[in-house]
Amino acid sequence: MAIDPQLINQLTLEEKAALVSGKDFWYTATIDRLNLSPLMMSDGPSGLRKQDASMSGLGLKESIEAVCFPASALTACSFDRQEMNQLGHYLGKAAQAERVGVLLGPGINLKRSPLAGRNFEYFSEDPYLTGELATAYVNGVQNEGVGVSVKHFAANNRENERFTMSSNIDERTLRELYLSAFEKVVKNAHPATIMCSYNQINGTLNSQNHRLLTDILRNEWGFKGLVMSDWGAVADHTAAIKAGLDLEMPGKGDLSTDEIVTAVKKKQLSETTLDRAVSRVLAMIDHWQQQSGDPQKYDMDAQHQFARKLAAKSIVLMKNDHDILPISAVDSIAVIGELAKKPRYQGSGSSHVNAHHLVTPFQAIDQARPETPYAAGYSLSQDEVDHQLIDQAVTIAKRADKVLLFAGYPEQQESEGFDKDNLNLPQSQNQLIEAVAKVNPNTVVILQNGSVLLMPWVHQVAGILETYLAGEAVGEATWDILSGKVTPSGKLAESFPQRLEDTPSYLTFNADPKIENYREGGFVGYRYYDKKQLPVQFPFGFGLSYTNFDYHNLTVSVEDKQVLVSLKVRNTGQRQGEETVQIYVGNHASHVEMAAKQLVDFGKVGLNPGEEAQLSFTLGLRAFSWFNPATENWQVDNGSYEILIGSSSQNIRLHQDISLDWTPVQPLIVNMNTYINVLVDHPELKSALDESGIGEIFDKVMTSDPATAKMFLNMPLRAATTVGVTPEQIQRFLELSNS
Amino acid sequence: MAIDPQLINQLTLEEKAALVSGKDFWYTATIDRLNLSPLMMSDGPSGLRKQDASMSGLGLKESIEAVCFPASALTACSFDRQEMNQLGHYLGKAAQAERVGVLLGPGINLKRSPLAGRNFEYFSEDPYLTGELATAYVNGVQNEGVGVSVKHFAANNRENERFTMSSNIDERTLRELYLSAFEKVVKNAHPATIMCSYNQINGTLNSQNHRLLTDILRNEWGFKGLVMSDWGAVADHTAAIKAGLDLEMPGKGDLSTDEIVTAVKKKQLSETTLDRAVSRVLAMIDHWQQQSGDPQKYDMDAQHQFARKLAAKSIVLMKNDHDILPISAVDSIAVIGELAKKPRYQGSGSSHVNAHHLVTPFQAIDQARPETPYAAGYSLSQDEVDHQLIDQAVTIAKRADKVLLFAGYPEQQESEGFDKDNLNLPQSQNQLIEAVAKVNPNTVVILQNGSVLLMPWVHQVAGILETYLAGEAVGEATWDILSGKVTPSGKLAESFPQRLEDTPSYLTFNADPKIENYREGGFVGYRYYDKKQLPVQFPFGFGLSYTNFDYHNLTVSVEDKQVLVSLKVRNTGQRQGEETVQIYVGNHASHVEMAAKQLVDFGKVGLNPGEEAQLSFTLGLRAFSWFNPATENWQVDNGSYEILIGSSSQNIRLHQDISLDWTPVQPLIVNMNTYINVLVDHPELKSALDESGIGEIFDKVMTSDPATAKMFLNMPLRAATTVGVTPEQIQRFLELSNS
Repeated sequence: MAIDPQLINQLTLEEKAALVSGKDFWYTATIDRLNLSPLMMSDGPSGLRKQDASMSGLGLKESIEAVCFPASALTACSFDRQEMNQLGHYLGKAAQAERVGVLLGPGINLKRSPLAGRNFEYFSEDPYLTGELATAYVNGVQNEGVGVSVKHFAANNRENERFTMSSNIDERTLRELYLSAFEKVVKNAHPATIMCSYNQINGTLNSQNHRLLTDILRNEWGFKGLVMSDWGAVADHTAAIKAGLDLEMPGKGDLSTDEIVTAVKKKQLSETTLDRAVSRVLAMIDHWQQQSGDPQKYDMDAQHQFARKLAAKSIVLMKNDHDILPISAVDSIAVIGELAKKPRYQGSGSSHVNAHHLVTPFQAIDQARPETPYAAGYSLSQDEVDHQLIDQAVTIAKRADKVLLFAGYPEQQESEGFDKDNLNLPQSQNQLIEAVAKVNPNTVVILQNGSVLLMPWVHQVAGILETYLAGEAVGEATWDILSGKVTPSGKLAESFPQRLEDTPSYLTFNADPKIENYREGGFVGYRYYDKKQLPVQFPFGFGLSYTNFDYHNLTVSVEDKQVLVSLKVRNTGQRQGEETVQIYVGNHASHVEMAAKQLVDFGKVGLNPGEEAQLSFTLGLRAFSWFNPATENWQVDNGSYEILIGSSSQNIRLHQDISLDWTPVQPLIVNMNTYINVLVDHPELKSALDESGIGEIFDKVMTSDPATAKMFLNMPLRAATTVGVTPEQIQRFLELSNS
Repeated sequence: MAIDPQLINQLTLEEKAALVSGKDFWYTATIDRLNLSPLMMSDGPSGLRKQDASMSGLGLKESIEAVCFPASALTACSFDRQEMNQLGHYLGKAAQAERVGVLLGPGINLKRSPLAGRNFEYFSEDPYLTGELATAYVNGVQNEGVGVSVKHFAANNRENERFTMSSNIDERTLRELYLSAFEKVVKNAHPATIMCSYNQINGTLNSQNHRLLTDILRNEWGFKGLVMSDWGAVADHTAAIKAGLDLEMPGKGDLSTDEIVTAVKKKQLSETTLDRAVSRVLAMIDHWQQQSGDPQKYDMDAQHQFARKLAAKSIVLMKNDHDILPISAVDSIAVIGELAKKPRYQGSGSSHVNAHHLVTPFQAIDQARPETPYAAGYSLSQDEVDHQLIDQAVTIAKRADKVLLFAGYPEQQESEGFDKDNLNLPQSQNQLIEAVAKVNPNTVVILQNGSVLLMPWVHQVAGILETYLAGEAVGEATWDILSGKVTPSGKLAESFPQRLEDTPSYLTFNADPKIENYREGGFVGYRYYDKKQLPVQFPFGFGLSYTNFDYHNLTVSVEDKQVLVSLKVRNTGQRQGEETVQIYVGNHASHVEMAAKQLVDFGKVGLNPGEEAQLSFTLGLRAFSWFNPATENWQVDNGSYEILIGSSSQNIRLHQDISLDWTPVQPLIVNMNTYINVLVDHPELKSALDESGIGEIFDKVMTSDPATAKMFLNMPLRAATTVGVTPEQIQRFLELSNS
C-alpha cells in the first residue's frame, strides 16, 4: 500500500508533530483518518529482538524467539564479506517474517578502548575492516526488503555518561577513524536509516549536530535516508529537527507532539523544516512497507546451522602449542568451567536475543564424547576464589590427557550501558586456570567474552581459543573447531594488549565524566602498538590454523590512480583450511602524523592441501589518502609507499615499495616563510640566490661548523637577516625567484 | 642618568618607530638629539656572551671572554634554589661589569621531548622545578642591577621549523605545564623582560599573540616589564605591537622604522598603541641603566670556583655497583674517550660562551694522578667505529683496576637550531663502551650530553655519571665527584627512558613541519611514565650518593588552605652528603585526566654522618589545583589526596593520605541531565523520588539483573522514560527536588 506523495499536504500540524516522534518504543505514529499504518523497528544486530507491545521499555530480555547469531565482535574475525552478507540476508528474512520494517543495526563504532562496555556489539579497531563487513551486512538485510539503522553515529566509544559526555576529537582523526566506516556504508549500501548516538562531539550533542547530521552525512556523503535518534538521545527535539534529525525514538506521547506544535507556533521551528523531517518519515514508512511485502515463513533451523558455520569460521585459535588441537579420538578429555554449561553466547542490552535453540559447549562435547568428566571450577556469580570448586577441577584435570577449560567475563562485568574498569577475568577463573595448568599442562582455555581480556596464565597453558560471544550454536561451533571438523580461520579484529596500561587511550578513558579527549588521535589499536613498537599479547589480524599457508609471487603495479596487487597463496599443510590475506599500506610520503601501516584490503580463500590460488586486489586512492583538515579533503601525496602483505598485522609475509606521483606538482612559490633547506633543495633557485647576493652569504654559513650549518638550514628566508642578508637582498631574491 | 618621563612627548613619529626595533643585534636605538643612549643586551644564560659590534650575527662562537657556568640541564639537577640564586648573582655581576643592561636568559621551556635540540638550555620536564629554580636565578641577576629576558615565551618545544610551526595545545595543558614556570617567575621575580618565541600556539604566531602577550601575561599575571621578540621572531611588526610586543629584535634598520611610520600614517596602527610600546622601551632603558650604575670589576677566578662547585653539586651519579666510586688512592685507573681531553661542556647556539678558563677532565685527573694512561677510543668527528682506537683503549683498560670512560653526544648531533632524530650515541662510542666493559667490568661511563640518551650498555658497566654540559670547570667538578672530594647529590630533572618509542610525544614529535600536536596533554615526563607504569632507565628525581639517608617522622597537617608537611632525614652512612627531598601530591579527588603524582615542593639538606635534620614544607592551594578551562581558573576539588615523600619520583619513602574540603559544596541542582547514580547517592532526594512515583520504578529496575541495574544507574533523568517513568513524573520530581 503505497503512500500518496501528496499525503504530507493533508496532514495537520499536530499530525506532522506526531510523526516525527515514535508512537511508542517500536512503532512510528499512526494516523487513522488517513489510513497511515505504522512501521515497526526492532533491535537485533545479531538476531531479531522483536518485543510485543507488552514488552516495551528496558525489559531487555523479553522478546519473541529468534535465532541468535554470533556477536559482531566474533563475526568480524571472519574477515569474510560473503558470510557477513549472508548473515544480513538471514536477519532480513527473520525481520520480514515478523513484519519488522527496520532492523536497528549494525553497530559499527570503532573499538577505541577495550574497556568500552559495548565493544562486543561492534566490529573492530580498524575502520576499513568495519566498513567492508558492515557494507556487506547492510546489503544483505536490505535485499530482503528490510531497512537497517546503522548506529551509533558517531564517536560513541564509551558507555559511561554516554548521554551527555563529549567525545573531543580532531577533525582528521574523526574522518579517518570514527566516521570512515559510516561513510563507506552510506556510500556503498545506502542504508534506510542512520541512528545518531547519545554523546556529543566536540561539545555538540549528536542529536543536535548539524555538521554531523546534515553537512557531512547528507551534503558530503549524499545520504538520502532517515536519521533517527538512539533511544533517549534527544534532549531538545526542536534543535534536533533543525540539525537534521528526522525521528525521535521513542516518542514521549503527547509531550512530544505538544513541544513541536508549540515550537512551530512560536516560530522557533519553521514548518518547512518540520516538513523535511515528516517527508523522510513518510518515505521510510512507504518504502519499507512496500519492500517487505507479506510476511514469509523462514527456516529457523537452517539459520541455526548458519549461526554455527559463521561462528566456526570466526573463532580465533590464539595458541596451539605442540598441536594440542584438534582433539583426537584417542585423547581423553576433561571439561572444566561453568561457562561450558552456562555459556555467555550473546551480549547484554539492546542486542539481546531470545534464542531459538541454544546448544551449550558441554552439550556438544557430551554428544560427541559421552560421559566426559565435568567440573564447574568456579561460579559465574562470584569473583572470589572457591577452593573447593578448584580442587574438584584439579582432580579431573589430573586424570585427562587434555583439559578443555571454559573461561570468560561474567555478564555482570560486561554489558551495554557501562564500561569495564579493568580487563581481568575474575580471580576465581584466573586462579582456576593456573591451578589446572599446573597439574595438566595440556590445557586449552576456551574464552567467552565480549572484548579483550588479559591472560596472566598465557605461558602456562598449551592452547587458547577465542570464541567471543558465539551465538546460540556456541557449543557446536566450538566443538567443530576443537574436534578439527572445521579448521580455524578466524583472525583477530582487535589487538590484545599485554597490559591495560599499554592501551592507546589508557591515560584518558573515562577520566572525566564530561569529556573524553581522544588524545591518541589516529593511533588506535595496531596503529598505536605498531608505531610505539609495543609488544602485544596477540596482534590485530592474528589467528592460527591447523594447516599452513605459503605466500609468494607478489606483483604490484602502479596504474593511473590505482595500484594492482596480486599474490599466490598455497596450502602447504595437511588439512583443508581458509586463510585471510591482509593488505596494509605504509605511507612514507606524507609529512603528517602517520601510522606505521594501515589495513587497506583483505581477502579470504579456502584451499585444500597442496592447492594454490591467486588473489588480486585493486587499491584505489583512498588506500593512500589522509584527510587534510586544512583543505577538508582527502589527499594523496607523491612519494614512497610500501605494500605489505600479512597473515597478521605483525606477520608480514611479502612487501614491496612503490612510488606514487598521482598529484600534480605545484611550482614552488617562495615567500618570507620558505625555509632555507627548501631553497637549497631547489637548484632552479640558484641563479636568483646568486644574483641577489644571498648565495655568497649562504655559502659562507654553510661551510662554517656543522651545527651552525644545520641551524641555518632550519631558518626561514625572513630570518636570513640574522646571518647578514639585507632586507633589500631578500626582496630582490623574491622578485627573481617568483618571476 | 634618568630619562625624563615626559620624553615620549618630545619624540617624533620616526623616533618612536626607531625605538620599537633594535638598533642592531644587541642595542636599543639611540636618539642623539635627546641624549638617549642605548641599552645593551647579551646572550648568556650560562655565562655572558657579549659580542663586540664587529661580531654581530650568527657568529655564535665569537664573544668576549667570560666564565662558562654549567648549562641549565645540569644546574637543574642541583634542585638547589640557593645555588641558582648565587649563579644569577654572578651572571649579573659579569653583565654589570660589561655594561650589559639585559641578560638574555634564562630559557625555561619544558622538556617535552628528549629529541628537542635546545633541551640543554632548559631546566626540566617538570614545571614546578623549572619555576622555582628560574625564580631564584632571576632574582639573583636582577639584584645585581641587570635585567633578564625570560625566554622563550611560550611552548617553544622543538627546533625544527621553529619559526613557523604551531604548537597545538589544549588550554589546561598550556596552563599547567607550558605557562606555569613563566607565571611563577613573572609573579615572584618580576623579570625586566620576557622574550616571545618564534613558534605559533594554536595557529597564532607568538609575536602576534594578543592572548599570550597581553591577556595572560599582563592582564592575568600582572607583568609590568617589556616584551621583546626572539631574534627574528617578528613576521609582521604592526600586528606584533598591537598584540603586545614592545621591541623587535634585532632591528631591520630603516625598513623597521619605515614600516611602523607607514602603518601609523595609514591608520593600521594607532599612535597610542605605538606609544605604549615606546614607553615600555624607554622604561626599560631608564630603569636598567640606573640600576646597573658604573661598571665594577669582578673576580673571574672566584666565578670559576663557583662554576666548579655548582657543577659538582649537580652531577648525577646514576649507577655505582659495588661502590666502584669514589676512586680510591690505591686504584689504578685508565682514562678513555676523546671527550676527556676535548670535553663538551656547553651548548651550541646563542648560549655559547667564550670560556675564561677551561679545565678538561683529563687535566684534572692528570694533575691528581700524574701519568694516568689515556686512549681516545673514538674520534668525535666520526660516527663510524674505529677499531684501531678501540683496540688501543681495550689494551689500557685491561691493565687498570678501574676505567673512566668519557662518552657523549658530539656537538654536531645536538645544538640550538635543530632537533635530534634519535637518542643514540655514535656507534663508535657505544661499541667502545661494550668492548672496554667486556675486558674490564670495573668501567665507569662519564656522560657529557645536553639531554637524554639511550644506554644499550647500561648493564655491562659498573658505574655511570651524568655530567651533562658542566661548564668550564668540567674537569675539576668531575674529578671532585670521581675522587670523592664531593659526595654526589644531583638528581635528574628529566626522565631517562629505555627506548625512544617510550617517550610521551613519540607519535607526534616533528611528524608534521607545520603543526606539532601536543597529544600527550599533561602527561609529559614522569607524569606519563608513572601513569602508564612504563619502566624507565632512570626516573625523574633520581640520583645516588656515596652515603645513605633515612626518612622518618612524617607529619602532615591540613590547615586553612594550606598543608604543612614535616619530616626528618638522617645521614645513616659514612660520609657527609646532601640529599634532595621531593614532595609529590597524588590527586584522587578530581574527576579529570590526572597524573599519578606531581612535584609540589623539594628541599635540599646537607648532613654529616649520623646527623639528622627536620625539613618542613608549606603546600598552598596550587599544590592541589588543576586549571579548569571551563571556568578559566585554578580549582581545588574536595576529596582525597596523597602526600608522597620521595628521594626520587619512583622511590617514595613516606606517604600519607589527606582529605581536603576547602571548597564550599554547592547544593545539588537536579535537572534532566542529572544521572541516576547521582540521584540515588543523595538520600535527601528519596522523598521526592517516592512522591513523584519514580522511586517505585527505580526500585524495580535496580533489583532486576545486575547488568541492567548498572546500565540504569548510568542514565540521566531524561532517559528514565525508557524504563517507564512518565515525562509528567519527571517534571513533578524536578519541582519537588529543587524546591
